[in-house]
Amino acid sequence: MIKINPYVEKTKRCTGTTIAITSKVKIGNGNFQVIAGPCAVESEDQIRKIARGIKQAGAALCCAGTFISQTSIHSFQGLGKSGVDMLLKARLETGLPVVSEIIDPSHLSLFENMDLIHVGPRNMQNTELLKELGHIHKPILLTKGISNTLEELLMSVEYIMSGGNEQIILCEGGIRTFEAAVRNSLDLSAVPILKSLTKLPVIVSPSYASGSSEFVKPMAMAATVSGADGLMIEVHNDPIKALCNGARALDLQTFADLIGVIRKIQPLSYQYHDI
Amino acid sequence: MIKINPYVEKTKRCTGTTIAITSKVKIGNGNFQVIAGPCAVESEDQIRKIARGIKQAGAALCCAGTFISQTSIHSFQGLGKSGVDMLLKARLETGLPVVSEIIDPSHLSLFENMDLIHVGPRNMQNTELLKELGHIHKPILLTKGISNTLEELLMSVEYIMSGGNEQIILCEGGIRTFEAAVRNSLDLSAVPILKSLTKLPVIVSPSYASGSSEFVKPMAMAATVSGADGLMIEVHNDPIKALCNGARALDLQTFADLIGVIRKIQPLSYQYHDI
Amino acid sequence: MIKINPYVEKTKRCTGTTIAITSKVKIGNGNFQVIAGPCAVESEDQIRKIARGIKQAGAALCCAGTFISQTSIHSFQGLGKSGVDMLLKARLETGLPVVSEIIDPSHLSLFENMDLIHVGPRNMQNTELLKELGHIHKPILLTKGISNTLEELLMSVEYIMSGGNEQIILCEGGIRTFEAAVRNSLDLSAVPILKSLTKLPVIVSPSYASGSSEFVKPMAMAATVSGADGLMIEVHNDPIKALCNGARALDLQTFADLIGVIRKIQPLSYQYHDI
Amino acid sequence: MIKINPYVEKTKRCTGTTIAITSKVKIGNGNFQVIAGPCAVESEDQIRKIARGIKQAGAALCCAGTFISQTSIHSFQGLGKSGVDMLLKARLETGLPVVSEIIDPSHLSLFENMDLIHVGPRNMQNTELLKELGHIHKPILLTKGISNTLEELLMSVEYIMSGGNEQIILCEGGIRTFEAAVRNSLDLSAVPILKSLTKLPVIVSPSYASGSSEFVKPMAMAATVSGADGLMIEVHNDPIKALCNGARALDLQTFADLIGVIRKIQPLSYQYHDI
Repeated sequence: MIKINPYVEKTKRCTGTTIAITSKVKIGNGNFQVIAGPCAVESEDQIRKIARGIKQAGAALCCAGTFISQTSIHSFQGLGKSGVDMLLKARLETGLPVVSEIIDPSHLSLFENMDLIHVGPRNMQNTELLKELGHIHKPILLTKGISNTLEELLMSVEYIMSGGNEQIILCEGGIRTFEAAVRNSLDLSAVPILKSLTKLPVIVSPSYASGSSEFVKPMAMAATVSGADGLMIEVHNDPIKALCNGARALDLQTFADLIGVIRKIQPLSYQYHDI
Repeated sequence: MIKINPYVEKTKRCTGTTIAITSKVKIGNGNFQVIAGPCAVESEDQIRKIARGIKQAGAALCCAGTFISQTSIHSFQGLGKSGVDMLLKARLETGLPVVSEIIDPSHLSLFENMDLIHVGPRNMQNTELLKELGHIHKPILLTKGISNTLEELLMSVEYIMSGGNEQIILCEGGIRTFEAAVRNSLDLSAVPILKSLTKLPVIVSPSYASGSSEFVKPMAMAATVSGADGLMIEVHNDPIKALCNGARALDLQTFADLIGVIRKIQPLSYQYHDI
Repeated sequence: MIKINPYVEKTKRCTGTTIAITSKVKIGNGNFQVIAGPCAVESEDQIRKIARGIKQAGAALCCAGTFISQTSIHSFQGLGKSGVDMLLKARLETGLPVVSEIIDPSHLSLFENMDLIHVGPRNMQNTELLKELGHIHKPILLTKGISNTLEELLMSVEYIMSGGNEQIILCEGGIRTFEAAVRNSLDLSAVPILKSLTKLPVIVSPSYASGSSEFVKPMAMAATVSGADGLMIEVHNDPIKALCNGARALDLQTFADLIGVIRKIQPLSYQYHDI
Repeated sequence: MIKINPYVEKTKRCTGTTIAITSKVKIGNGNFQVIAGPCAVESEDQIRKIARGIKQAGAALCCAGTFISQTSIHSFQGLGKSGVDMLLKARLETGLPVVSEIIDPSHLSLFENMDLIHVGPRNMQNTELLKELGHIHKPILLTKGISNTLEELLMSVEYIMSGGNEQIILCEGGIRTFEAAVRNSLDLSAVPILKSLTKLPVIVSPSYASGSSEFVKPMAMAATVSGADGLMIEVHNDPIKALCNGARALDLQTFADLIGVIRKIQPLSYQYHDI
């Protein structure tokens, strides 16, 4: 059933299983991590509050959008460079490593102090961007496009690896289907399949897929037990006032509760997977 | 995001949460059950061996195909009435309640001794069949079609309930998507969404979706933790020689190992869902 | 790219290209026909008016639902046997051959005076029904399911042909996709692909796919030029008052105008296809 | 059924219906044009031969890839700037206006002598690119992404128009569905729907969708009659030796034959659409 493309030679040869974001924060090979944060940096105060809150709850990285690729030009496009600066300032204050999504190769110099660079679902096949990311020395978080196959995801990995950068974390964030009750359908079978085909860590983003905070908890639990190496969860200090996608963000207390549950079930499920 | 159709009045009014298959075997409201068995009854010996094996491993019901709706007429179509008789004989010998899929209303009289009647994904909108099932006093297991929405599933529930039969268990068995690495994509978000919309038990069939035995275990674990009330797993005493769909069947030992894992994680995850 | 399943032996051997509905009405091999009528027979008066109107406009067959498989049990389910009688009466009065959709094998005796029996998209894989239709001596109109592949359609043809009945007309009626602006996406590439794989006539149903009468005309024109052997168009004498799917029905005048256009472009396009 | 997003104000206000590529070549409002050429510029000789051939056959523009966004990094990535130069040289020699696909904003200066700039399906939501294209004075050909809705296409139009550039031609090139017999399913209903929602010209690319040259002719004919304002057809002087996607390219003679057919049916069909 599963056909791996013969042209992903570098991807197949890759032997690394642990990606070191910082000297302390590692993902893969038994290191399970939660990445959390708002859809967008909105202000210094907002990102500071969220970074503090998620750190206290146990998140390992803070993610937040700075340049945001929206469907509508009339939606909030992010604070751009100012957003990057605010996010880095929050890192300084909390000690949490940070990650933001890059949407154009020309922004790369602005991202040089990020600990992890995110390629979001819309840019999984932005081949000029992928080539650039192959030449840097920084881990990349590569989310599968909402209409891309697992084989195509691995071929995008190959784009980055061909430049020399093998520090790649994969992310399942849902696929576009006919189902109208969710924004996208979270395809958890991606986790065991990707882990059977590569040695790269695989994380899951239940927030992006569901489109609704209500279903983040059960899907985060299921993702954890499917064998994922981590989760990416959207969290906001005041979801109702969020400038983008507040409907799918957890508030800080709900996030803290969720992380408590994840920390209980993750070790138990972990022992039952063949690693 | 989630819109429940206003015309499923009976479905919404339904208050039952526990379906009693027999006086001892109940599903829902805290009762988690595993249904297991082969794609098809092939012989008295085969179904007896499998029924014994899965009972010993801890399954609560034995499922097996008797009339099989295949894509190709040149594939094995099932043993029909003889298959029903063999399955009922296995029940007599093992004490395990049994379930088989009905594919035509005219077969209903042959199914009168089944403990549970399965409506498979191809017949989720076989409205003449659904109407007939509304008039009997027996629980129905209704699997969502591979291209049907959750709203359409609830509207099929309404067909059955309108006849008076409210003993319905829902099943998620995967949806048809563009992803080529799996037979169908298991949509686990169906579990929390269905449970937010109805009081009916919801089970998951990871075997049917994945098409490959290799990924049954992680998906069964994930389904359990998503809040499902049970699993339906294809099991064969000799998968390589199976007359249909052997590639997705677990052998008896692998099934026993899986059920051991499920029994460990199910109670833990259960306590973290709001019931 | 195109893989024909090796198990459709009868389908591949089939040499007929012309299906004779009656001694005068033939489809295929240069015979292009328009089938038209309402979603449902509603009354003697309604079906008579429509049959007369479409005959005058140039339709070759009258189609109308009698037993209707609806998503909701609260929608109009058709007049059943009375509807069949009314449709046959309209045939008697107008001389137009008639076709209706069968949704259960047990209704077959009621359909014995139909000139053509329609298997709709929901029943394309109702294998018990297909087997029964293989044993009768009457042409079958087989519409592809909204989520079925062309290969699966041919395998359903094989079910019917295996019983001996090789009088089969294929119909493309749209597929379920992510596109929200239409009910289903009409996949016109089905026409040349099916014609490259079989010798059976292929018609197109633009009404069912679009869900909106507004787009029936351009899609009917495109279908004609794609090489189709006919069209099936929903027509109602008073669409706003239709008991089902009035939104996609043409009124009689619009239908007459459309058929005028089709009669102009069909011969021209026909000469440019390799037959 | 059709919901136009309230936030595409500029798109809705746009009154232009004719896009002037050059002083002689116009598209829209009764001007039907065929764009043709190879997937990639491969050499001076190749693009010259093709440009001459398609001009003689009657094409109005020559399209050819220069920077190519491939799924695999091991596939031919295009000649880049040299390819642009070769294409411009072919324009000089033949007088045919030229178009090539842009895949990154940083390439924009290289495209300043192109007559039309193509945004391909992968970059329909490359928002940084769309913003840049809003600031130039040159017509844009915007192809819908293989998994994007018509509403999303219009929202991408709005990105460009918000910068001031209203010279936009839309293109339907197929959507990703479950159907395995084609690369993508050509959704011709996009043509009448887009024309009901905007005043922009709409063309169709049957080559990209089908993936196979065998089905280009019937789909090109159908697209023409659906009301499209033009076609984009892949043509190669020696398809078997093409460096990319030769399987879907027509040879020059087949293209000349096709254009002969299109020129016959286009005026006839045109008179039957309400413009």
